[in-house]
Amino acid sequence: MSDVNKNTPPEGSASKTGKSNAKSHGRLSISASVQPRELMSHSPRLAGAWTAKIITLFPDAFPGVLGESLTGKALKDGKWALETVDLRTFGVGKHRNVDDTPAGGGAGMVLRPDVLGRAIEVAQSGAPLDRAQWPILYMSPRGKPLDQAMAHRFSQARGMTVLCGRFEGVDERVLEHYGIEEVSLGDFVLTGGEIAAQAMLDATVRLIPEVLGNAESIEDESFSHGLLEHPQYTRPAEWKGRKIPDVLMSGHHGKIAEWRREMSEEITRTRRADLWDAHQARKDKK
Amino acid sequence: MSDVNKNTPPEGSASKTGKSNAKSHGRLSISASVQPRELMSHSPRLAGAWTAKIITLFPDAFPGVLGESLTGKALKDGKWALETVDLRTFGVGKHRNVDDTPAGGGAGMVLRPDVLGRAIEVAQSGAPLDRAQWPILYMSPRGKPLDQAMAHRFSQARGMTVLCGRFEGVDERVLEHYGIEEVSLGDFVLTGGEIAAQAMLDATVRLIPEVLGNAESIEDESFSHGLLEHPQYTRPAEWKGRKIPDVLMSGHHGKIAEWRREMSEEITRTRRADLWDAHQARKDKK
Repeated sequence: MSDVNKNTPPEGSASKTGKSNAKSHGRLSISASVQPRELMSHSPRLAGAWTAKIITLFPDAFPGVLGESLTGKALKDGKWALETVDLRTFGVGKHRNVDDTPAGGGAGMVLRPDVLGRAIEVAQSGAPLDRAQWPILYMSPRGKPLDQAMAHRFSQARGMTVLCGRFEGVDERVLEHYGIEEVSLGDFVLTGGEIAAQAMLDATVRLIPEVLGNAESIEDESFSHGLLEHPQYTRPAEWKGRKIPDVLMSGHHGKIAEWRREMSEEITRTRRADLWDAHQARKDKK
Repeated sequence: MSDVNKNTPPEGSASKTGKSNAKSHGRLSISASVQPRELMSHSPRLAGAWTAKIITLFPDAFPGVLGESLTGKALKDGKWALETVDLRTFGVGKHRNVDDTPAGGGAGMVLRPDVLGRAIEVAQSGAPLDRAQWPILYMSPRGKPLDQAMAHRFSQARGMTVLCGRFEGVDERVLEHYGIEEVSLGDFVLTGGEIAAQAMLDATVRLIPEVLGNAESIEDESFSHGLLEHPQYTRPAEWKGRKIPDVLMSGHHGKIAEWRREMSEEITRTRRADLWDAHQARKDKK
């Protein structure tokens, strides 16, 4: 590792750097091989398993919450795979610098195109060149806001490479050169792209068949029909003087379904005029 | 711990359960005391430090990425504090069940109001009752979408309690009874609220004075002026045949500022008509 870290890895070559740069989670971690190249490409056992490759300065932050609960179980079961590529190992000079001051002046630091380029080319080794099959994402507030339709599209690819930024952002030329898709989590600023990547991965991975193991539960959720979800209640029937609405205790399935639809519509209309207008527009088309 | 876990903790009492339920991060962890009550209230040394209390089934997922980089350093330096409240320890019966089937039928499970209520009351002990000073949030796609203005508001409170859901959601009565603010990360569905809570905390904590240590950098960012950020460039001046735009290399500060403003406006107009319209409306008012 020390030898590798003293030298800038050659562009586009995973064979010398893959072992020290890449870390795998889930089933792939069992099959870690002395042939580092294998870590960076699809293992035969996992051919077809949806794979996320994360380029980050904080590889230890993964899988994070994604390693828990249903996404974590699916990761362990090999239903999806997660690999991290440590951006630091591609840095320049003795201190493995990954950033430099912005051209034209200004506060903060910008991630260097040469450093990012080398990391991206290592991450892409073994991945399909077709961006529809394997998108490269950069999590950024300048991107298109993530929504459920986008998560569906990502879940239908074979995998993705995700670039997590830090500081003031990345050199624009990298985004242009590799046809990188900028995706935003929302209109707020984060200190880095790692949490945004985890949110996007969570939304995406749970749509991969067999990950949730309960297709019906997905159908019931907010956004599946373009409406926010109706209120939910469970035991006890009375709590702090508050009772579950009578209709839900009636056993009358038709009335329950009608009440839930009405509540969904009312909540969407009062809370999210934008979603409600889109819902009405869809209804008018039919 | 085993004794506590065998009994449902009494409502509103932290003294018997605080130790086994709560885990602190940052400076608070140094002052962990045999008096569990102190863990759940402001330690005198940290009076005034902005504090997040997270109610979750996955306390080990915190601080996660928030423990790295600038937010992590600020956490260690006591500029903010993070406590987790393990929802499982408030569960019902031998298996500490926290959820039950939805009233009226349907897929999935709903978090019980009695279980959530006990956890919330423990988390709230020592916190201001005024929700403006100490909001209680529930991360949910049914909520108001998080934006930079909301993060600013949260950063100006004394702290917050965050409820992380799982499964089909939480019993609606809990949201009503405690005046809980529903906050959405965006129009997509996550397997749980933990990643959403981390994103919201990252956006919020970095706005607390002294956490970033570079106020100028905040000013430059997307959304500070309601526009998306201009492209950034750094060394090398030429990479893969792509050069940094001449204007940025000119040294002419006026022209650089003008170019950046124009690029910000163009990117906002082409990528986000909604933000652009809002920006124009603000300009017209002036």
